[in-house]
Amino acid sequence: MASNPTSEVDVLIIGAGPAGLMMALWMSRLGIKTRIVDKRTDKVFSGQADGFQSRTLEILDSFGIGERVWKESNHLIEVSFWNPDSDGTIKRHRRAPDNISGMSRFTEAVLHQGRMEAFFLDAIAASYPHPADPSGTPLKVERMVLPTSLEVDEAAAEDDDAHPITVTLRHLTEEEATPTQKLSNLSDGLFRSNLAGDDVGKMLAQSKGRADVREEVVKAKYVVGCDGAHSWTRKALGPKYEMKGEMTDFVWGVMDIVPITDFPDVRTRCMIHSASNGSLMIIPRENKLVRLYIQLTEVSTGGRVDRSTITHEMIFKAAQKIIAPYKLEYHYCDWWTAYQIGQRVGQHFTKCDRVFLAGDAVHTHSPKAGQGMNVSMSDAYNLGWKIGLVTKKIMPRKILSTYELERKQIANELIEFDHKFSRLFSGRPQKDILDETGVSMDEFSKAFNMSHMFTSGLGVNYSPSALVSKPSEKALLLESDKEVQHEGSPVAKSKLSAAAHCKPGMRFPSYQVVEQCDARPWTLHHKMPSDGRFRLWVFGGDISQPAARERMGPAATPFAGTARFRLDRPPSVVDVLLVHRAPRGEVELLRDLHDVYHPFDAKLGWDYDKVFADGESYHEGHGRAYEGYGVDPDKGAVVVVRPDGYVGLVTELGEENWGRLRSGSRGS
Amino acid sequence: MASNPTSEVDVLIIGAGPAGLMMALWMSRLGIKTRIVDKRTDKVFSGQADGFQSRTLEILDSFGIGERVWKESNHLIEVSFWNPDSDGTIKRHRRAPDNISGMSRFTEAVLHQGRMEAFFLDAIAASYPHPADPSGTPLKVERMVLPTSLEVDEAAAEDDDAHPITVTLRHLTEEEATPTQKLSNLSDGLFRSNLAGDDVGKMLAQSKGRADVREEVVKAKYVVGCDGAHSWTRKALGPKYEMKGEMTDFVWGVMDIVPITDFPDVRTRCMIHSASNGSLMIIPRENKLVRLYIQLTEVSTGGRVDRSTITHEMIFKAAQKIIAPYKLEYHYCDWWTAYQIGQRVGQHFTKCDRVFLAGDAVHTHSPKAGQGMNVSMSDAYNLGWKIGLVTKKIMPRKILSTYELERKQIANELIEFDHKFSRLFSGRPQKDILDETGVSMDEFSKAFNMSHMFTSGLGVNYSPSALVSKPSEKALLLESDKEVQHEGSPVAKSKLSAAAHCKPGMRFPSYQVVEQCDARPWTLHHKMPSDGRFRLWVFGGDISQPAARERMGPAATPFAGTARFRLDRPPSVVDVLLVHRAPRGEVELLRDLHDVYHPFDAKLGWDYDKVFADGESYHEGHGRAYEGYGVDPDKGAVVVVRPDGYVGLVTELGEENWGRLRSGSRGS
Repeated sequence: MASNPTSEVDVLIIGAGPAGLMMALWMSRLGIKTRIVDKRTDKVFSGQADGFQSRTLEILDSFGIGERVWKESNHLIEVSFWNPDSDGTIKRHRRAPDNISGMSRFTEAVLHQGRMEAFFLDAIAASYPHPADPSGTPLKVERMVLPTSLEVDEAAAEDDDAHPITVTLRHLTEEEATPTQKLSNLSDGLFRSNLAGDDVGKMLAQSKGRADVREEVVKAKYVVGCDGAHSWTRKALGPKYEMKGEMTDFVWGVMDIVPITDFPDVRTRCMIHSASNGSLMIIPRENKLVRLYIQLTEVSTGGRVDRSTITHEMIFKAAQKIIAPYKLEYHYCDWWTAYQIGQRVGQHFTKCDRVFLAGDAVHTHSPKAGQGMNVSMSDAYNLGWKIGLVTKKIMPRKILSTYELERKQIANELIEFDHKFSRLFSGRPQKDILDETGVSMDEFSKAFNMSHMFTSGLGVNYSPSALVSKPSEKALLLESDKEVQHEGSPVAKSKLSAAAHCKPGMRFPSYQVVEQCDARPWTLHHKMPSDGRFRLWVFGGDISQPAARERMGPAATPFAGTARFRLDRPPSVVDVLLVHRAPRGEVELLRDLHDVYHPFDAKLGWDYDKVFADGESYHEGHGRAYEGYGVDPDKGAVVVVRPDGYVGLVTELGEENWGRLRSGSRGS
Repeated sequence: MASNPTSEVDVLIIGAGPAGLMMALWMSRLGIKTRIVDKRTDKVFSGQADGFQSRTLEILDSFGIGERVWKESNHLIEVSFWNPDSDGTIKRHRRAPDNISGMSRFTEAVLHQGRMEAFFLDAIAASYPHPADPSGTPLKVERMVLPTSLEVDEAAAEDDDAHPITVTLRHLTEEEATPTQKLSNLSDGLFRSNLAGDDVGKMLAQSKGRADVREEVVKAKYVVGCDGAHSWTRKALGPKYEMKGEMTDFVWGVMDIVPITDFPDVRTRCMIHSASNGSLMIIPRENKLVRLYIQLTEVSTGGRVDRSTITHEMIFKAAQKIIAPYKLEYHYCDWWTAYQIGQRVGQHFTKCDRVFLAGDAVHTHSPKAGQGMNVSMSDAYNLGWKIGLVTKKIMPRKILSTYELERKQIANELIEFDHKFSRLFSGRPQKDILDETGVSMDEFSKAFNMSHMFTSGLGVNYSPSALVSKPSEKALLLESDKEVQHEGSPVAKSKLSAAAHCKPGMRFPSYQVVEQCDARPWTLHHKMPSDGRFRLWVFGGDISQPAARERMGPAATPFAGTARFRLDRPPSVVDVLLVHRAPRGEVELLRDLHDVYHPFDAKLGWDYDKVFADGESYHEGHGRAYEGYGVDPDKGAVVVVRPDGYVGLVTELGEENWGRLRSGSRGS
């Protein structure tokens, strides 16, 4: 093995599911030297995860692929609750919206994972040639590649230039990489279920003793394990990385079918509690497909389930019983599986901030809330730009510790939510108010509605850190030049009242504004593509008044011309943007505004794309952005948004808040 | 030459520009055996046409590619008028919206023709495998192919099964197909300009006497000449197909540059009239590009212009003079050309309704109004489905005569508009009210605003015909079965008051409704993809009331189960859809409505996608569709929409209007 070829890479991603592909997409956009390997021969073609939450669609949209999902997917707008009537027959109890209105341009949508993976691959390919490295090799998924060893040189972990991780990769043959229980003719829907065991051991056993085993050694700065619930990466990190949690007695089947039924709400998301046959969730999907989550009360015995007892016939019969007296048949089944509900989460998400775990590799739960793929992608979305900016030496390594801080919090919230929701949904409906072991249908329906802020992903609220300045906390936000860096020095504190609806730690909301130079209406998220840049949104008020212009000028100038924020060398790490409240016709972009709001380039002329008015558009109404963001036009505000769209800092217009930064930058 | 290989095809398209590709897209969607040939080696990469009007975007959207154009293009929202001040300096006179509000989901947009051609090719490829012919060969553009002869067997013209057109095609070598004046290093921007001659003669001359000339003979049912202003097809049809019209003295240059300028409105569409240096139109485009249309007053002499005098330096100097005192420079020029304004239109658009001319092949005019590509595509959009449905024997051949009727009318309107607009824009601004040879700037600006209905394409209003039933006219709409066909028999007359804002001959507008089965809001255009089907929109009123349900049932039943409209064999030629006005929660789709509104399929179950409520959506407001379409909820209405989205018939709910159709269909 001494002769294995050895190479270096900045980032090695293990696993090409939703988390791995999201990580790869970030790396491709930031131009980071990266490899992504996957043990399987191919991507997912049907079944698996299918729910896209609002926040996930916003994230995908920031990479330019949200619209593809939005167009092909089925949108879930309404939910029906069906409960047993006094005679035990299911009846529609009530209808409710499936989303909170006005929070996002997107609502919950469903489309199978395979389509989304294809969109990711297209988007990664479209990142090349990369402007920063036109001759760089395009990132492609290397399939049929399995890691066999991983070592971290902890002594070198804090060295910016080191490649402290050594991974051995084995290149599998087609035969080795094909799961023995490969999905074919619906004979076994369970091969990727949590009822199935891990097949890596089997894969490795097959090549044991073969003379032509092909291996290589990769030295990496960072490794990200996105390799699912059976994560090889997690196991390689040792026993203290094991996930902790519990398995319930609840066993559920899943079927994707084109239903033939007289049940009236089959194209609506439905929560059906039958009197005594268990519960059923209906998720209408694209192309006439409907996903059914079917409680299997008969196999719900204590302990681990014997998977040999579970067949698709048995699952479908359970569905028919729950939905009776309505008839349910099907001619076409696209996919099926079964799983036992459990909630587990890892205690550690990283080793030395060099090896990271993301997605199912570090938290698992039941799929019914449509969270799995979303939380997995969000893990990688949180981590990707941090690794990218650290690798490029734009940000210091210490920001990497925010990954575990932020995402472990979300994983724990997810587990807690899933724990509560699973029990309410899998429980037997209460017969009457004296039935103490039954679940109150009112309580269930209330819990479901309360959960929208969480399940939509819009409620995420990260804790204070170097990247999130809350009023009571210090923040090192945006401070990266070594000469001005002092551990723990309070660079800036958020003053929440300046933009009352921009909460540090939460995602920056999106409202419509009108572009100064051409009157085009934009929702602000469209001006924040995921390109690794911080955004400094200046709310300047009525800048047709000289006093307001005076006040606004200095807000951004600390950033102008300093090496730290590289405004002088595009693409800058900080994008300075202005939303004013003056009548648009009374502002002349070049005449009235500081250069920072229309940077000049000798070949491309002025940049006209930084200034917007909060006003009436010709055809799309008034976005009322100042109201939406909670900014008083008479006072203005400055909001710093991280590259992942989360608010880092909210403060007032005026120099005093930027004192530290200014003196730092002026001194340089 | 006797040994030339011979083959048959239903449709042969000559020319793969916007009109040819639109035709090819229709044919691919309808599964018609088609070939498309083009003499050039490649598609357009820069310059050329770039304006997309609202109606064109709606049409592209009906094929699923409107959003791609919409996303990549620059949107023109506002227009600025710059006129000479009293001292002769240009000043911004006023700003105005560039579109009419509320007419369309789209506004004017610009993107270069090459991108759009790429979207067409993707959309054509995505039509395969075609459901009606899964093993059919995908339609691909055959480049470097030039027709050399065309004959029509007029005696066989009315035979449905004949291939009466014989075309010889020559396959060119790479060298022959490459224009000698190929655009390179901007050395000659004029090679596709109307100042340049035709190069086909040169192409053919090159292969003269060569022994290895490769030709083939194609027998076609239909030939569509989409081969531009120098149309070979038009010339092959003989002298009576020559275009008639006039050439003006006005010569204009065009440049696509990234401008470096202190002119404040360079990202706005601008109409600049200088005092004595001519006029300039600014069209801001994608990727920081700006298109300048620059009047060349110095070369504006009588007669044909000497093209050797026109260079990009000379054009740019003219622009600098017009825009002074503002400075204008550029580092990057993407494309340039020049043209002499003229308006010409063919007297005949077809030979025997077998050979058709579309686009620039049959009408030319100045490009500044952004009409050329739009009217060309609309020609082909009007023709494609007609040829398709006739080829499939769904509709009788006589509907083909509506092509010339409808599109010649539009071409004449276009010429008239262009004539007027060109003179107003190229004319010298009036110095004062006594200056009789000058153009009044108020008149110009008024004419511009009045033109939106025309230039947007939304004002198109086709004349009465077999496909458009106006109140005073007979219509044979939808009557195709031979046994019930009587020339000129009045099948149905429109009763306009039933849906006051649906005008027969005009495009069916689009309003938001809420889908009955799942509460999803849709704009009705999204339920009308270009798939060759007629749509029968039934406005049923408040169908929670039994009386309204009674009244609505028969409206569609004449179509149900008859061979003529093939509702029994999907995909039907008539898509029956219902917009009701009842509270959505009070309607149960399967329980309350006739089968025609939820057709059943043994394998796919019921179709839930035909019924919509005009009501409040959860997140997107109320579309007020009944108001928009002008339907009285107490009376209801039926609107028949052609496969190209134009209203064919407006009538009342109730049997009497369908009398002829019903007796016909019941008799079959």
